[in-house]
Amino acid sequence: MTATSDLGAARPASPDLLRSVFRRHPAGVAVVTARGRSGPVGFTATSLASVSAEPPMLSFGVSTGGSSWPAIAETEHVGVHLLGEHQQALAATFARRGADRFGPGTAWREGPEGVPVLDGVPAWMVCRVTARVPAGDHRIVVAEVLAGDPTGHGRPLVYHQGRFSGLPD
Amino acid sequence: MTATSDLGAARPASPDLLRSVFRRHPAGVAVVTARGRSGPVGFTATSLASVSAEPPMLSFGVSTGGSSWPAIAETEHVGVHLLGEHQQALAATFARRGADRFGPGTAWREGPEGVPVLDGVPAWMVCRVTARVPAGDHRIVVAEVLAGDPTGHGRPLVYHQGRFSGLPD
Repeated sequence: MTATSDLGAARPASPDLLRSVFRRHPAGVAVVTARGRSGPVGFTATSLASVSAEPPMLSFGVSTGGSSWPAIAETEHVGVHLLGEHQQALAATFARRGADRFGPGTAWREGPEGVPVLDGVPAWMVCRVTARVPAGDHRIVVAEVLAGDPTGHGRPLVYHQGRFSGLPD
Repeated sequence: MTATSDLGAARPASPDLLRSVFRRHPAGVAVVTARGRSGPVGFTATSLASVSAEPPMLSFGVSTGGSSWPAIAETEHVGVHLLGEHQQALAATFARRGADRFGPGTAWREGPEGVPVLDGVPAWMVCRVTARVPAGDHRIVVAEVLAGDPTGHGRPLVYHQGRFSGLPD
């Protein structure tokens, strides 16, 4: 062990520090959907994580400034989809402010509990929201998995260094 | 849109369904550390996510059945480290039950707020815990970033299909 003075390049926290760290942290790419009062909503999330095995639960973050928040704030159920490396355009659509996310370029159907389920994804789940935890400018949504299909085709899409890509074979 | 009956392979939730889905969800690999009453503790986490930009906050999951939980349950500060592809052995050590995690194979020093900081990682942060949210057999820890260094060497380590690997160039 050496002294704290050896901690070299440590710098105080800032949004920029957080961004610099997480640019180096690869993440699978998900799209979260819900049935809103005036139609389906959804957004791309790189914060999806498995939380608990018994009962099966997951979490993801949602910006309270985004277009999906009003629906996510009051919905009982959400759809959670893992995107494949062939779905980069879909990931971009669900991340772009003002995009027509459920337009002609998005194939979907109504799934269990009325949640929008996207076609052609490697895996999807329908979940019941159990908590929306305030955390700065976001909420952490905690949800229990009700049903799902892990058998879709495709290798995963990965977000890293601000870009979407695939994984090595 | 087609009817719900087209949802083919959907099956009811179970720990196995969750595992099958998340085996297909790649994740960066982190080690979370804290100063416990009887020495340093730490564990490998594949649930690390950036949560809020202002203030900079992150979250990760911790099993309430693991050896680190007693310390994480009462610590004010944690160290969060992104592992590099050269640190597969370290990831395995901090994931293995009963391993001597801060033994001779682990290079570390005492960092800000007394948290153990691992040597040779691509990036690390010291954070103040703001919440421990119950979620089934885990807690979701929410923490505000206080300081960090995003400038270490190495490309990221990735966990996917139950294995550690690197990313393509």
